[in-house]
Amino acid sequence: MTLLQRLGRLLISLAVGGFIFFLGIPEGLSWEAWFLLSVFIFTIVGIILKAMPMGAMGIFGMTLLAITNTLTFQEVFSGFHNHVVWLIVIAFFIARGFIKTGLGLRIAYQLMYLLGKNTKGLAYGLVFTDFILAPAIPSVTARAGGVVYPVVTALAKAFGSEPHNGPRKLGAYLVQTAFQAGVVSSAMFLTAMAGNPLVAELASESGITITWGSWALAAIVPGLISLLVMPHLMSLLYPPEIKNTPNAKAFSREELKKLGPMSVQEWVMVFVFALLIALWISGPYIHMKAVVAALVGICILLLSSVLSWEDVIKEKGAWDTLVWFSALVMMGAFLNKFGITGWFSQLVVSHLQGMHWIPGFLTLLLVYFYSHYFFASNVAHIGAMYAPFLVLGIALGAPPVLAALLLGFSSSLFGGLTHYGCGPAPIFFGSGYVKLNLWWKLGLYVSVVNLIIWIVLGGIWWKVIGLF
Amino acid sequence: MTLLQRLGRLLISLAVGGFIFFLGIPEGLSWEAWFLLSVFIFTIVGIILKAMPMGAMGIFGMTLLAITNTLTFQEVFSGFHNHVVWLIVIAFFIARGFIKTGLGLRIAYQLMYLLGKNTKGLAYGLVFTDFILAPAIPSVTARAGGVVYPVVTALAKAFGSEPHNGPRKLGAYLVQTAFQAGVVSSAMFLTAMAGNPLVAELASESGITITWGSWALAAIVPGLISLLVMPHLMSLLYPPEIKNTPNAKAFSREELKKLGPMSVQEWVMVFVFALLIALWISGPYIHMKAVVAALVGICILLLSSVLSWEDVIKEKGAWDTLVWFSALVMMGAFLNKFGITGWFSQLVVSHLQGMHWIPGFLTLLLVYFYSHYFFASNVAHIGAMYAPFLVLGIALGAPPVLAALLLGFSSSLFGGLTHYGCGPAPIFFGSGYVKLNLWWKLGLYVSVVNLIIWIVLGGIWWKVIGLF
Repeated sequence: MTLLQRLGRLLISLAVGGFIFFLGIPEGLSWEAWFLLSVFIFTIVGIILKAMPMGAMGIFGMTLLAITNTLTFQEVFSGFHNHVVWLIVIAFFIARGFIKTGLGLRIAYQLMYLLGKNTKGLAYGLVFTDFILAPAIPSVTARAGGVVYPVVTALAKAFGSEPHNGPRKLGAYLVQTAFQAGVVSSAMFLTAMAGNPLVAELASESGITITWGSWALAAIVPGLISLLVMPHLMSLLYPPEIKNTPNAKAFSREELKKLGPMSVQEWVMVFVFALLIALWISGPYIHMKAVVAALVGICILLLSSVLSWEDVIKEKGAWDTLVWFSALVMMGAFLNKFGITGWFSQLVVSHLQGMHWIPGFLTLLLVYFYSHYFFASNVAHIGAMYAPFLVLGIALGAPPVLAALLLGFSSSLFGGLTHYGCGPAPIFFGSGYVKLNLWWKLGLYVSVVNLIIWIVLGGIWWKVIGLF
Repeated sequence: MTLLQRLGRLLISLAVGGFIFFLGIPEGLSWEAWFLLSVFIFTIVGIILKAMPMGAMGIFGMTLLAITNTLTFQEVFSGFHNHVVWLIVIAFFIARGFIKTGLGLRIAYQLMYLLGKNTKGLAYGLVFTDFILAPAIPSVTARAGGVVYPVVTALAKAFGSEPHNGPRKLGAYLVQTAFQAGVVSSAMFLTAMAGNPLVAELASESGITITWGSWALAAIVPGLISLLVMPHLMSLLYPPEIKNTPNAKAFSREELKKLGPMSVQEWVMVFVFALLIALWISGPYIHMKAVVAALVGICILLLSSVLSWEDVIKEKGAWDTLVWFSALVMMGAFLNKFGITGWFSQLVVSHLQGMHWIPGFLTLLLVYFYSHYFFASNVAHIGAMYAPFLVLGIALGAPPVLAALLLGFSSSLFGGLTHYGCGPAPIFFGSGYVKLNLWWKLGLYVSVVNLIIWIVLGGIWWKVIGLF
């Protein structure tokens, strides 16, 4: 993108924000509140248009708020001591350990070795690899690009399946299954996708508490069903030409041999991983915040030299997330504090009286979900639409927790629609195995199946565990 | 360093912290206060012993405080929304622009071209380069390693002065002068050395406000005198064999030609630099915090594509500083809030009654200064000794501002004593031009001259401008 294109898009963002501002301040709202809303909209539009990277847009928004004294400096930077922000930042560091030590690849090849008798078995191996790594690798891009993708392409090539010759469909089947499974496992844990903590934080602004454990509990049943269904569904929609892969076991054993025996570093990673999951689940009972558990984890990795301090400070994805996340969390918190959220919900309520919540909320959910065709990032979508749609859903009379969770899980699931909708999409698409129109068709079919599983079976599960 | 050595040093740090803790809690102090002091001492001892990098020690300290519930998570991470911390973090980003655009090198060669008729002229060129860049490049290592050092060695070699053959002393003279000038200019601006804002923050805990402008105003007279004296002093202590450098002008012109005409990016850097200095000086009058000005600066650099967002997130020195600085600032603030500082000052006062402040404070200052022989980092030294020595000085009856400034300026100046005492020292020493015993001898002599200039002439200047 040229400098001019970028400035053009920035001007559009500025125009949209400015338009809102000059609409005039509704009664009961302060000048500061209305200016904050305009800056927020400027920031979000800039992120959606990709005028600048998210972090840079965040800095612009923060600077506008600081320079106009809309907020004090401490308020503008208050997101930087938010505990969910740091949970995800530290999880990025811990995730580096999986890749650096090679444990991620070992898990993948071990599962291939165990399950890879046939093509579906291989697919299950990939699905479970992603599922196992999801709780501790919040960067879907790192999970896909650092672990799953290299394994998928190595496997496909080992069976002679290249994008442009040989039985292309084996690679295509594995790529699609791995991609869609990654989308599902992102929805399953608070720490499985960088946008999930943003969901939790925005939900908490509406008075709904979501902990690491309650997220995982709610997602485990529909999530596992989605994951188990995926290899079958995909082989139905897009059957691979090669069904039996007798050499996969031998191939995986070769790769495992290359990795050698488990190193001390890998054992430390296993220990830290187990400790984290245990602490994250038991957190509310032993009164330990998830972020404090993550701090303990990173201390162990540093002490044991699994990670060096250099690894931490050069983990640029973490610092990127720190900045954009802090900016969005801060704006969300002050939109609420300044009464914008309340004003919006009252505005909506007055228009929705008498409507039943079930058709109303379902419409809302589908609009939220399929508007992802227009987004190139889960987080941009969450930042722009999650909070107002949650407010809308609650105003319609939907049970707040149900609304928060369904919109939250959708915030990962919609990533499977296109070849640009979430971080791993361009990576997998870039392999060349799957053509564009097929990618979109499969994405649409899978999204329908996922929505049915998560709404119907999920709804039943949440009723059973008493969430609503 | 092996893992065992590192763990050994950590155990020593833990033992020292634990020893303090088990000394027993003095009357009037809470359990939390005493535990915080022990954690602080553990962290600082670990930093001094280089058990782990500063940032990692900071994380350990924060984790200990969070996991014991000594402080809440928000309190533990409160340093991350401190405005001086972010001033220095953003200054690191801006500094990257000087190096990336080549403006730093251009300034250096331009000054060489103007002043480089003889060896002393070259030395002045280096001195002024460092001085000009100092306000906006808080990483002394980046200033030395990224701009001054490459020019020094290129110049020396251009005149046939190599560490092991030819007239070694030209290179040696330039290296020593550039190094000591860098030490002096670090002391001159709040944003010239990463530890300076820590000084300002710790002083503010003792009720002394130091702004960007008041720091620069206090330092400008003794600083400029030190800088002007340096090339002469060094040629007296260590005369270069080559006095005339008729080719230096031609050499610099060649280098300038290689750089080509000023690029748009460089002009933007010049503009941002001028704007920052103007805003930093006028800040208190237009009610703009220095950090907000820095935010404006980084926005301009991002908007104009002088820096990309990628440049920002991979600027690992900035993220390193963010972590260790936030940790130390947080501990300093809570040591004060929990009454440790007050308790310590009362303890000292009771022992010092009747002593005159001038000999008392001078002794203190010299102890503070020359104990830097035992430190490999300005920041470690500041973190360990600045706050208690300031409290001691004030308790002795020294004018608080004078005490804060002299200890603060010393916190840069002592970096010239050894070949490991501050970031640039190992870089310049590593050039091989100056042998170890000579380096220490020159460091000692220069320190005496610097102390006289800053205490006597500085003291007169501060009296004139009414600082005490």
